[in-house]
Order: sequence, then structure tokens, then C-alpha cells
Amino acid sequence: MSNNVDMSPEEFRKYGYELIDWIADYFKNIEKFPVLAKINPGDIKLKLPKSPPSNHESMKEIFADIDKIIMPGMTHWNHPKFMAYFNSTASGPGVLAELLSAAFNINGMVWKSSPASTELEEVMMDWLRQMIGLPENFWGIIYDGGSASTLHGIAMAKEAVKGNQFRVKGMMGDKNGKKLRLYQSEHAHSSVEKAALTLGIGVEGVRKISVDYEFKMIPTELKKAIDEDRKNGWLPFCVVGTVGTTSSTAIDPIPEIVKICKEENLWLHVDAAHAGSAAILPEMRYILNGCEEADSFYFNPHKWMFVPIDVSAFFTRHPEILKKTFSLTAEYLKTEHDTKAKNHMDYGLQLGRRFRSLKLWFLIRYFGVEGLQKIIREHLRLTKLVESWVNESDIIELIAPVNLSTICFRAVPKHVQSEAELNNFNERLLEKINESGEFFLTHTKLNHKFTIRIVISGLRTTEKHVKEVWEHVNKCIG
Amino acid sequence: MSNNVDMSPEEFRKYGYELIDWIADYFKNIEKFPVLAKINPGDIKLKLPKSPPSNHESMKEIFADIDKIIMPGMTHWNHPKFMAYFNSTASGPGVLAELLSAAFNINGMVWKSSPASTELEEVMMDWLRQMIGLPENFWGIIYDGGSASTLHGIAMAKEAVKGNQFRVKGMMGDKNGKKLRLYQSEHAHSSVEKAALTLGIGVEGVRKISVDYEFKMIPTELKKAIDEDRKNGWLPFCVVGTVGTTSSTAIDPIPEIVKICKEENLWLHVDAAHAGSAAILPEMRYILNGCEEADSFYFNPHKWMFVPIDVSAFFTRHPEILKKTFSLTAEYLKTEHDTKAKNHMDYGLQLGRRFRSLKLWFLIRYFGVEGLQKIIREHLRLTKLVESWVNESDIIELIAPVNLSTICFRAVPKHVQSEAELNNFNERLLEKINESGEFFLTHTKLNHKFTIRIVISGLRTTEKHVKEVWEHVNKCIG
Repeated sequence: MSNNVDMSPEEFRKYGYELIDWIADYFKNIEKFPVLAKINPGDIKLKLPKSPPSNHESMKEIFADIDKIIMPGMTHWNHPKFMAYFNSTASGPGVLAELLSAAFNINGMVWKSSPASTELEEVMMDWLRQMIGLPENFWGIIYDGGSASTLHGIAMAKEAVKGNQFRVKGMMGDKNGKKLRLYQSEHAHSSVEKAALTLGIGVEGVRKISVDYEFKMIPTELKKAIDEDRKNGWLPFCVVGTVGTTSSTAIDPIPEIVKICKEENLWLHVDAAHAGSAAILPEMRYILNGCEEADSFYFNPHKWMFVPIDVSAFFTRHPEILKKTFSLTAEYLKTEHDTKAKNHMDYGLQLGRRFRSLKLWFLIRYFGVEGLQKIIREHLRLTKLVESWVNESDIIELIAPVNLSTICFRAVPKHVQSEAELNNFNERLLEKINESGEFFLTHTKLNHKFTIRIVISGLRTTEKHVKEVWEHVNKCIG
Repeated sequence: MSNNVDMSPEEFRKYGYELIDWIADYFKNIEKFPVLAKINPGDIKLKLPKSPPSNHESMKEIFADIDKIIMPGMTHWNHPKFMAYFNSTASGPGVLAELLSAAFNINGMVWKSSPASTELEEVMMDWLRQMIGLPENFWGIIYDGGSASTLHGIAMAKEAVKGNQFRVKGMMGDKNGKKLRLYQSEHAHSSVEKAALTLGIGVEGVRKISVDYEFKMIPTELKKAIDEDRKNGWLPFCVVGTVGTTSSTAIDPIPEIVKICKEENLWLHVDAAHAGSAAILPEMRYILNGCEEADSFYFNPHKWMFVPIDVSAFFTRHPEILKKTFSLTAEYLKTEHDTKAKNHMDYGLQLGRRFRSLKLWFLIRYFGVEGLQKIIREHLRLTKLVESWVNESDIIELIAPVNLSTICFRAVPKHVQSEAELNNFNERLLEKINESGEFFLTHTKLNHKFTIRIVISGLRTTEKHVKEVWEHVNKCIG
């Protein structure tokens, strides 16, 4: 360690270059690594010292251990053959912005503590708003992820309940004795239930509405459920619509849900976590039809817009309700600018806030809106290509419509007959597909069918990779 | 833009070097910038285009705008004369680790999705546990910040209430009709109230216990409040103790609070956000006395341990209750390892998880435990030095005991007599101190006295800077 308390600027430069080199090579050689870590639980732990070192170790030793200890335990989300979950890939400009953000290391809790962060965040959120075509009356803020965004949307819905005293009295003490109920489709993300149990609404406060043959919420079922609940003494307060479900990218009929929400005076929160990025294409903007009337809405640029995790873009037409829900100002956080500038800490659970808007600034400028459109448009073309292959196949069938980035399929070889056997066959098939570590797909269940998913939304995924995975799947079926 | 969809590895290398250079110079020249941004709300926004660019812009243009647009709006948390709030400074190894984490861009939601991240996080949390001397039965997990850690601690306390059905029934539907109440000192952080209103407990569910002349919670007052509440039909369930309050670093008497919690069967959550790092010094370990019996506990290595934001280290003796509070597993997240490995998504609100443990790994290894001890020990020495100067001064008085990193003081010039005038004088004095942008101090109120705080916990703060701020304060008093 130098005399300087921190690493000296010279040492930072030297090892910074080395790490940049390491990362450039990592991106260049990404296909040489298996996408899926082929280790067992506990393997990495065994390589790590049980106790922290007393004395300084050199960056050289630490860097060497990245290759020795970390790399064998990596599932490479950046890999072009990572077609699991909804993937998220880090782009070069996004990574550089994160580096700068870490170096600044500000805390944008109040305007004064980081004016540049507060104002860049407001402007970047407005850029995103324009890119996906939400109206001007939507105001945006960055949260860390979809679970947080959904929690904030539902918390606002609760706060918007007429005459409620939840904020002060809590839920057990509110005069309104009726229990809250919110509605989501059977296919909405588990973060909705997590938000409900966190907010004191309870898992029973979430009613799951059935879906049609395309896995979209059925509006007449929603209406029926609300009527029934009102009769039985529940207080309906919120609907969570999904644009692009996690299982199959189903798109709930938002315009019809909006109509019901208006009639019934319910809050509408829209989860477009993965799909939202596709709305930057003029030809795909329709997926957000109706969302201009949502009360809160979010999508995650860290999913399909190549921003390193985490940036969840949350929008609302009611920032004043958001502030009413969360604002609390201690003396030591009061500043002379409080009437002239927004303090982001007032608009959410988090007090501390990283300089995340830099990532959007670098990314959108580097690619340009048209550059980003081009990338996502190619993903959609590749997805349609796989769909056409499935349609031509005798042994593979589609299990859900292909709306966006995701193909849901299963193998249906002639010798496998019953549904139970098909489920077993496809479960084993998925294991086989992933076995070599060269490919990574994941599954879901749709209508009780074990369903394999191919997700094409990685920055480095090209037609070549898609062909390889398709051939591999067919080979594994045998 | 190259033919490659992302920035090419060569371009990444080129601009990566440039940014590393920029940051090395930034750290080197940090004292040449004003610590406090001298701009007005809206100034930065005016320099930013209202709409996103359609076409690619070069990294060169983007980098140029860091200096042109961002830097004038920066409040420099890394600056050695940033002695406001509780500061947080980014160390070189921490910044490099964040760069690597952004490049990997994994999502450690389940073990399989990033084994290295899941296991490194477990081991690093155990290193931290050992460093601050918590017993082996504490299990740790990283959250993004103190607000999240406190929310999780209180959520667990709620889930631990005997016979409750909150998770399923919600709070309005729980058979136990009694309202929950939690206890904190008057000086606990505002995140406790924010957690209470988020969790449906309500602001009224938080009872503030008075403090003694050193701003520590008075245990007999706590006991009295619990008794009174039980009589009045409340259900006491949790105490939040603070080790190092935000206003004055007061340390609640945890051993006595533990005793009450045991007698009354209450959950004890301890907030040691800033102070916890000091416990890595053997001679300071006493500040955590009693915490070995806390049910949940956290501190923020991103505050006084030079890890870039965000790493909040949350520990609990009851990981099974944490899992019971938050676990929900959708089909598409089930894996074959679920019985053999911990999936971090089960232990909190967040599904997505960044590779944050890399920052602890780089930092602890680079500095070594002794290196970190040396830095914090020096901060404590400097704080005591300022205390001695205050004690020698005729026109400056201490307003709170100096326990850790923070000196709470006010000017008491002979010509200013009444308390109201003293408050006015000190408020104006603080404005004067910060006016030039060369220094940044913030205030609090203690016993209705406008109190100025000097916080010495920045990585680059040395005796020279402390002397300069002291001279400056005296000069401003006039």
C-alpha cells in the first residue's frame, strides 16, 4: 500500500488498464466460456479463505483469483447462448458509465447532495418516456428493480384509497374495516405477491384472474371478480396489468382493463419489465396501448436495453401521491432548496441513491435511439425465425403465441403419448440441452405442460447462435 | 458504431483506458474542485437536450460532456473536505470491483443463475461478521441500503409475532386485533418510520422513546412505554436500537435494551449503519456490546468502509424467519439445486441481485483488516483532536458527546445571547461556511439547538483538512 491512504492514482491507472484489458478480452472471448457454470453447490466456497486477510494483498493476486476462483463459478449472462429467464446483457457504454458512477460515488438523496444526479435522472427518465411514447404527464424515477417498482406502484394504490388512514394509522388501525384486494392475471410476476405481503395486504389480498388461450387476463373475469368481492365485503383497490408476462410474454388487454379500472375507480399499475423496451420500435408501440391511462407503469432498461443492472424505470401520472406515500424529512436532511427542487428521497423507500442515470445517458447517446431500435428489431426477427422453424417441425410444438422475444415450446415425439410422459420427456430434454454448459435455456409451465423457453434478447445473440441452439435442441430430442 | 452490435472490444479498451485516466486524474485533483456544487436548481437540466438523440454519438463527445455538463453540478462526496451527513468515499479497489461487477452483469437471484455471486456473498458476509465480532450464528446478506435493511428487519419482527397470519391474511385480516407497536429512540433514523408506513404498521405504530442528555434511549422509559401500551391494547413487537445515531452518533444502551426485549418477548433490530465499521477496531468493539443478542442487525460498509454505494450488510440469527417472510417461488424460477443451495431471492424483497460481494472481496483483500483498522483509527484520532480544540475554544461549544466520527457543535459568541438568536446565528454561520464551496458541513437540531456537524470518515481526509475546516469555521464566526 502506498503512503496515500487509498490506492494511489498511479496504481489505480495501472490496475484500471489491466482490468479494462481483462474485460475487453472477456467480451471478445465470451463464446469460449461455457454459458452455464458446471459446478456443485459449495464448490466456490471451498476455494475461499474462511477468514479475511489481516494484511494487504496486491491487486495482482486479486486479479489472478478472478480467473482461478470466480470464473469457474460464473453463469455468463453476457453469453450469446444465454437464452434463459429474461436475460440482461451489459453493453460497453453501460459498463463504462457504471465505472464512472462508482468513482463519483455520490448519494443523490436530496438535490443538494448531488444536483447533477438529480437533474440528469429527471431528464433521462423523460428521454425514456418519449422513447416508449408515454404522454407528458408521466413523471419518472429510477428504482433498483422490478420488485421495487411494483412495490411502489401498489403502495401508491393503497395510499390513493379514498379516506384511508393507512400511512398514519397502519392497516390494522384504519377506520375502513374492509380488506383490500388487488387483481392480477394468473401469469403476473411473483413480485406482485411479494409486494402484497410486504405492504401488509397479504397473499389473500391478491386475486388471480384467469387467462385466455393466449395467457392474457380475461377482462370479463376481472369484472366478475370485482363484483363478487364487493358483494363479499372486500375493498378492490388496484389492478396489476402485465405487458409481457415472464412465462410467455403474454400481453394483457390493457385498454379493456383501463375501462374497468375507470368504472370501478381502481388504480392501474402496469408491469412491462421486459417488454417495455420493445415499445421504442414504432411498429411495436401498440404493446403499450392503454398504458397512457395507467396510474403507474414501469419497465427495466437493464433487461432488454443493455444497461447494466440495476435501472428500473418507474413512471406515474401522480408524483404527488408517490410523495405523500413516502415522504418523511428529518432535520438533518432539510435544505434551502426544498421548495425549488425535487429531493428524490421523498419519492420512494430508498434514502441513498446511486448515480444510475449516467448509464442511460451513455447508452442512449452511444447507440442512438435508432441504433437501439435496430438491435431490438433484429431480436424480434430472430424470434419469428425460430417460430417459423417450430411451425415446420413435426416433433416440436409451440405452447404460446410468440409476441416478442420468447418462444415457448415442447418436444412431442410420436412415441411419447400421455401428457405426464410428455412432461417427463421435456424435463429430461431440458437437462440434456443444458448438460454440456454450451447452452442455457429455462422452463415454465403453461396449462400444466412442461414448457421450454428460448429468449432472444441478448446484445451478442445473432442468427448463428439461434441456429446453433435450434440444431442442438433437435439433436437432444434424438 | 462498429459492425459489432455492441461497442467493439477494441473501442471498449480505448475508451476504458481514457475513462480510467479521467478517474485517476479526478482522484488526484479532487481538491481542485469545489466540494459543493455552486449552481441553482434547473441549471444542469438547461444544458441537456430535451429529447434523446436518434443517431450514435461518439464516446469522445460523451466524455467531453462529463466535464462540461456533469462536473459543474457535482457535490463531491470523495472530497476530503466533504464533512457533511455521513459521508461515503469510494476507494480505488472498490471502484475497480464495481467495474468488474458491471461487466459480468449477472443476476444472482438463484444459486444457479450465478453460483460465484451467491457463494462469494455468503463468504464475504461471514468475513464481515468476523471483522465486527458477531457470533457464528449470524447469517448475512447484502441489501442495497439502510432503508432496505431496516425494512427487512422490521418485516421479520412482524412475521415473528406469535400466531400471526399477516403474510397470508394481510394486516387488516389478521385474527389478532391488536395493533402492532415498535419502539425507537427519538433520534433513530427516519428509515424506521418509512419502513413502518411501508409495511402497513403506520407512523402511529412507531413510538419514540426519549433520550438522555447524551441522546441515548432511556431504557426505563422504554419499559414504561411498553407497559403503558400493553395496558392500552397495543401489541408491542419490536425495538429498533441505534448504534451511532445520524444526528450525533449516540449509542443506545443495547445490553439494557436486550434485557427488556427478552423479558417482553420483543424482536430487537439494531441499526449500526455508519458506526458498525468502527467495530473492526478491537478498542472500539464495545460499541456493539449486546448486539450478539439482537435478532437482526445491519451496518453499511458503503459508509465508513470505503466500498462504493451500495452495500448494506444485514445479519440475522433467524434466516429461516427471513425466508418465511419473503419466499415465493414461481415455476420459472425453480431449479434442481433448490434443496442444496440458498437462493438469495428467497431472503428479501428484491428478485434481481447484482454481484456486490466483489466490492467487499477486492476491498478487504487490498487493504487487509489491519489496513482498514489503521484508516478508521486515524479518523477517530482526528475527531478527538477537533474535540480538544472545541474544548479549548471560548466561542465554540460541544452539543453532544464525541463517540465516533462526528463533532456536534455551535458557535456561542459573547454578543449573541438568547437561544433563538444563537439558532439564527449558527444557521447563518453554516451558510457562510459552505458559501465558497470549499467546505461542506451540514446541521442537525439537538435539544432545539441548531447544531453544526463535522464528520471525519472520508478516505482522503487528513489532519491538514481538519485543521483547514477548523480555521475556516473560526474565521467565519468572525
